[in-house]
Amino acid sequence: MQGIPRKLRMAMVGGGPGSFIGPVHRMAAELDAQIELVAGAFSSDARRSLEAAAGYGIDPSRAYPHYEALLAAERDREDAADFVAVVTPNHLHFPVAAAAIQSGYHVISDKPATTTLQEAQALAELVARHQQLYALTYTYTGYPMIRQARAMCMNGELGQIRKVVVEYVQGWLSKPLETSDQKQAKWRTDPAQAGAGGCIGDIGVHAFNLLEFVTGERVVKLCADLSSIVSGRQLDDDCNVLVRLRNGAPGVIQTTQIAAGERNGLTIRVFGERGSLRWEQERPNVLNVSWADHAAQMLHAGSSYLEPTACGSSRLPSGHPEGYIEAFANLYREFAACVRAKWSGETRTHDLINGIDKGVRSMRFVETAVTASREGRGWVHIA
Amino acid sequence: MQGIPRKLRMAMVGGGPGSFIGPVHRMAAELDAQIELVAGAFSSDARRSLEAAAGYGIDPSRAYPHYEALLAAERDREDAADFVAVVTPNHLHFPVAAAAIQSGYHVISDKPATTTLQEAQALAELVARHQQLYALTYTYTGYPMIRQARAMCMNGELGQIRKVVVEYVQGWLSKPLETSDQKQAKWRTDPAQAGAGGCIGDIGVHAFNLLEFVTGERVVKLCADLSSIVSGRQLDDDCNVLVRLRNGAPGVIQTTQIAAGERNGLTIRVFGERGSLRWEQERPNVLNVSWADHAAQMLHAGSSYLEPTACGSSRLPSGHPEGYIEAFANLYREFAACVRAKWSGETRTHDLINGIDKGVRSMRFVETAVTASREGRGWVHIA
Amino acid sequence: MQGIPRKLRMAMVGGGPGSFIGPVHRMAAELDAQIELVAGAFSSDARRSLEAAAGYGIDPSRAYPHYEALLAAERDREDAADFVAVVTPNHLHFPVAAAAIQSGYHVISDKPATTTLQEAQALAELVARHQQLYALTYTYTGYPMIRQARAMCMNGELGQIRKVVVEYVQGWLSKPLETSDQKQAKWRTDPAQAGAGGCIGDIGVHAFNLLEFVTGERVVKLCADLSSIVSGRQLDDDCNVLVRLRNGAPGVIQTTQIAAGERNGLTIRVFGERGSLRWEQERPNVLNVSWADHAAQMLHAGSSYLEPTACGSSRLPSGHPEGYIEAFANLYREFAACVRAKWSGETRTHDLINGIDKGVRSMRFVETAVTASREGRGWVHIA
Amino acid sequence: MQGIPRKLRMAMVGGGPGSFIGPVHRMAAELDAQIELVAGAFSSDARRSLEAAAGYGIDPSRAYPHYEALLAAERDREDAADFVAVVTPNHLHFPVAAAAIQSGYHVISDKPATTTLQEAQALAELVARHQQLYALTYTYTGYPMIRQARAMCMNGELGQIRKVVVEYVQGWLSKPLETSDQKQAKWRTDPAQAGAGGCIGDIGVHAFNLLEFVTGERVVKLCADLSSIVSGRQLDDDCNVLVRLRNGAPGVIQTTQIAAGERNGLTIRVFGERGSLRWEQERPNVLNVSWADHAAQMLHAGSSYLEPTACGSSRLPSGHPEGYIEAFANLYREFAACVRAKWSGETRTHDLINGIDKGVRSMRFVETAVTASREGRGWVHIA
Repeated sequence: MQGIPRKLRMAMVGGGPGSFIGPVHRMAAELDAQIELVAGAFSSDARRSLEAAAGYGIDPSRAYPHYEALLAAERDREDAADFVAVVTPNHLHFPVAAAAIQSGYHVISDKPATTTLQEAQALAELVARHQQLYALTYTYTGYPMIRQARAMCMNGELGQIRKVVVEYVQGWLSKPLETSDQKQAKWRTDPAQAGAGGCIGDIGVHAFNLLEFVTGERVVKLCADLSSIVSGRQLDDDCNVLVRLRNGAPGVIQTTQIAAGERNGLTIRVFGERGSLRWEQERPNVLNVSWADHAAQMLHAGSSYLEPTACGSSRLPSGHPEGYIEAFANLYREFAACVRAKWSGETRTHDLINGIDKGVRSMRFVETAVTASREGRGWVHIA
Repeated sequence: MQGIPRKLRMAMVGGGPGSFIGPVHRMAAELDAQIELVAGAFSSDARRSLEAAAGYGIDPSRAYPHYEALLAAERDREDAADFVAVVTPNHLHFPVAAAAIQSGYHVISDKPATTTLQEAQALAELVARHQQLYALTYTYTGYPMIRQARAMCMNGELGQIRKVVVEYVQGWLSKPLETSDQKQAKWRTDPAQAGAGGCIGDIGVHAFNLLEFVTGERVVKLCADLSSIVSGRQLDDDCNVLVRLRNGAPGVIQTTQIAAGERNGLTIRVFGERGSLRWEQERPNVLNVSWADHAAQMLHAGSSYLEPTACGSSRLPSGHPEGYIEAFANLYREFAACVRAKWSGETRTHDLINGIDKGVRSMRFVETAVTASREGRGWVHIA
Repeated sequence: MQGIPRKLRMAMVGGGPGSFIGPVHRMAAELDAQIELVAGAFSSDARRSLEAAAGYGIDPSRAYPHYEALLAAERDREDAADFVAVVTPNHLHFPVAAAAIQSGYHVISDKPATTTLQEAQALAELVARHQQLYALTYTYTGYPMIRQARAMCMNGELGQIRKVVVEYVQGWLSKPLETSDQKQAKWRTDPAQAGAGGCIGDIGVHAFNLLEFVTGERVVKLCADLSSIVSGRQLDDDCNVLVRLRNGAPGVIQTTQIAAGERNGLTIRVFGERGSLRWEQERPNVLNVSWADHAAQMLHAGSSYLEPTACGSSRLPSGHPEGYIEAFANLYREFAACVRAKWSGETRTHDLINGIDKGVRSMRFVETAVTASREGRGWVHIA
Repeated sequence: MQGIPRKLRMAMVGGGPGSFIGPVHRMAAELDAQIELVAGAFSSDARRSLEAAAGYGIDPSRAYPHYEALLAAERDREDAADFVAVVTPNHLHFPVAAAAIQSGYHVISDKPATTTLQEAQALAELVARHQQLYALTYTYTGYPMIRQARAMCMNGELGQIRKVVVEYVQGWLSKPLETSDQKQAKWRTDPAQAGAGGCIGDIGVHAFNLLEFVTGERVVKLCADLSSIVSGRQLDDDCNVLVRLRNGAPGVIQTTQIAAGERNGLTIRVFGERGSLRWEQERPNVLNVSWADHAAQMLHAGSSYLEPTACGSSRLPSGHPEGYIEAFANLYREFAACVRAKWSGETRTHDLINGIDKGVRSMRFVETAVTASREGRGWVHIA
């Protein structure tokens, strides 16, 4: 098999029966035939961990009941996992990632990086010290047309960025779903598992990350208004934030999980000196562009006229819809390339990858906004 | 001609050559064959006032060079104008309306009512004292599907209102158009003619008015961030405001005039306990409704299943697009009905009409937001 | 009043109480302050004719019970009507237009021109002999973006036209509405009033006319499949036609009135060598353009980059929706310009106007398709 | 590993470097962790077959230069492939499928089944005689909202089906791409490789199959107009067909590959007595439904209110877009379930699977339409 690179081996922590994001990570990781899931600590309940292994089609002897067992056992195998994917509820992101890095694994983690800024900073130190790769799966940064948008902001096509509006409108928590036994709702509304941010920690971080990813700008101050709209809910489920960017431009981040009947309405609009962009996650293969001086355009994923970074993020010809899994798979593909590069002694990392610096930044956003809103402050700086 | 009601006679102040809104008022007023334009002080330049009269198809002897001349001369005619339409730049709204009311005319005025809160309050007193009719043409309240939205908020179909987002995105001032001789841009960016608010006074008031019109709620506090983005501009051209409603619900008003390439993107979304509404001005004949418990709907103007207030606001069968002029015409039709009712001795006013109370309220919004933003305050109350 | 052109005076035949299209003609005619409705034979029932006059705001003494009375009486007035608008059910189009022309009036008529090809040819001879103006209100040719589409076909931007698809999908006759007392349904499904074509005569002619108007091409042969889908209906209510253009390009015309729940879904798509157009009547202010070699565009009505013929057909800035009435009004505006030109001794007619030649052509389309479908022939030539 | 079902093993014929559909089959097959690609005759060029194997991540010793070698060699392995996926150009579909079935493999094949009706019938006999499973990957039947549409047609929700319109509009062959070295264009426009149908054989069969799949109806006669629009092209690149269904309803199938700038515009509309459906492949997660008696609906994939067959075809919550690969994967999932059922001795086949009967039917459609169009016949019956 000389000359043919083997698939990377992935171990997953979390993703047991009932998980939404675990199967997504598995499908995304394996989509390009570059990675195979080989092991997992899918659930702390051994029987459920085995059940998950069966669903994922992996060897039951590599289904562990605890991530520490996994990290220890896999290390000694000849066909050991090359990296660990962290797909647990938020409160385990830090301990699992920290342990994996200290055990010598590269780590790819679901967002947010941790539940507190302090943890995120500690993790950043670990990553730096151990020189392991660490990536966050900010899914939406994987979409081809988001990369097109980023390229158009970066290369000056739009002129100076003058305003940004990011919205993320969901409705699945418009009722007190956490009082039923819906697993997703339970942990996401529980401060002990989700952290200090509810809506802001779950989807606000996506909006914030996307704003900075697409524009290449940084938020320097904000004014936040968070609410717990559904009666009895402990964490925020609605979050409205005015921001200002480093270049002085104003912006708005508006996210909610109580918009009855809405699905996964993430939208970003960037207004530049020469033109304006609009991208909607539920119609991801189109990027709408308005121009000050000529007719509006609709750019379509898979088209030859797109920027290389966008072209290279599609697998199919234009008009053959790709979606959430494919966007996610782009993140895994780039992570895999970084692992292989590291094996070859290269130190470069992929500029589209969201590393632990982005994790720290998102947690700073959450903590700043949560505190400022609770204490009724107006504008506050975000370092 | 007994038994057949004559058309109401309208005199217009403003609307000379180059005016955008003057011709709109004329078309809207006459659309339903209930009103005819008979006189005007279209421009302070007598020659231009005559030129306008020709375009409007009216008798040149009734084209006056000044509104005071008009008010005086028309009063003495047997076929005198029944009401005055004020379509000048903002700074003349107050003096013209005040003079007309004091001269015994009913008044219909373009928005905003005045350039300051103080003027608006003074006008409210005049209206009350003289018992003349006064209406503001908040155009967007005339659209059938906005009335449908309002009915659905009012009748409880959506359950409790939990959040409102209103956006108004224009791009026509993305360049310093006021340095050319574009008449619209010149006065709208000049504090002496426009008042203290630029974008907020021109389109922010539409957004604010629409929020309260549709939801039936009131904004009780706000946190505003206004900017002058185009270099050298004296007034704000971008305006982002967090609000809270009387019932505690959060909201966002986001308006801009520097969104390069955008047209007239007014959008309102209302999120209720049971469902959510979305209406977009550039596609005005559809109201999108998402429901927590069943499939999303698209309601179409002219459909028999709509609320009476929406049905009655369409002139054509479903699928035959009506637009801005028709919405505007609805306001004139209701104003005409009020005038006729007053002639019959009735005192009822039309509940869809925006009276001087709405004018006062909008000016309070502008002044509160402009001051709070300039002074860097966070949240402030709006009486 | 020297130097100021007076409004043209219009007399209407048809358009009595319950009419859909009568009020549209009135609103459209008067929208630009160039025309005023002054007289009418609105209904053969004198009381109803008077009732209509009141609604239209005209002098009851000019409400006639019969068009012959109108033609005779108006002729003798100093302020006689300048032209007659024919808005009756189809079977009266010919006799009224013929009488009006013979009485020396110009005529503007709702489509189709007549109920038979023979009548249309007879009318064409009358028009030619009497040198009166005659125009058909093919509404959809009045939309700005249809004119933009036509200009782009004509000026070669799209390259050679390779295929055309026109659809017109309505649902209002999906039930046997004619068995109720719905006036519109009654006459449109009655061969004695509608002519030999049901759906094809009512909306198929719009589709056919639009195809030729936009492309500048001519249909030379067709293969038609007409059905009466609703049980008991005498005329076709569904109509599918393959066509070939003079340049050899294939096309499809597909129209129906039994598409339950659909409104007024007229769509035209033109596929050229270099690019493709799509226009949808229910979203009339946008023209979608796909290009072989670069990104797709959305052209918006009212934009400065449009062709002059499109720019000149909008009354409002981009983003302020115009619709059916405004498109209709463009036809009246151009008709009025022709009348005034004729008064000045000019003979030019407006190239956007659908004259009696287009009426003949549409009737030929209807008769050819109805006959070919009934007799089960395949392809047949259309002269 | 007792009790845990192993993955099915797939061998692929075709799908070498430059193939579009080969990688799609691989991704789709493996998406649900139920199937793994283990072997392939990817190209008749041994070096290219190896190259493909590397890209797919499979053992190079199982990359064969010819399908006969593959069929022979794999049969003898303990870990032999369980089925063969045929992803070659059309002319090899029949010989490969026939050989595989005769060698005892189940077969899943890209469409069309064969290049002639005669071959399709021969294949049907082989499938029946050998009792192997055979499925065609009519991709679009795998979309959740297509299954929703089918369920709504079948369960009577729409009432009687009255009309169907299917369109498939592509632009990638609007230039003579086959004269370059574009592999896809070369074989698809070459009668020796594609068969007698160009556009009709490539995408017309999708449209035809989808029409019958969604409505549950059968086309009984047709009138076809095929053209070769691009100069020098041997096969049709545009295809317009009037049809009649068994229940008498009319229909239109309109497909093209020369619509400059268009992508993959497959659309189906079904008009029933009570309501109408519209689905667009480029926006696959929405099904638009218009109702005669109430407001239009937008049904969204992943929603709990959908029919079980639609719900079960989504992997993600509503609002997380799935696309072409996921639809394709549904076909593989169902095929895998049939294989496992067969292993268990069950004979049931999945009612959503397109078997060889559908392959025969599509070839009959192609041959009937091609012949009828060439010979200029009008309406012809299709058995």
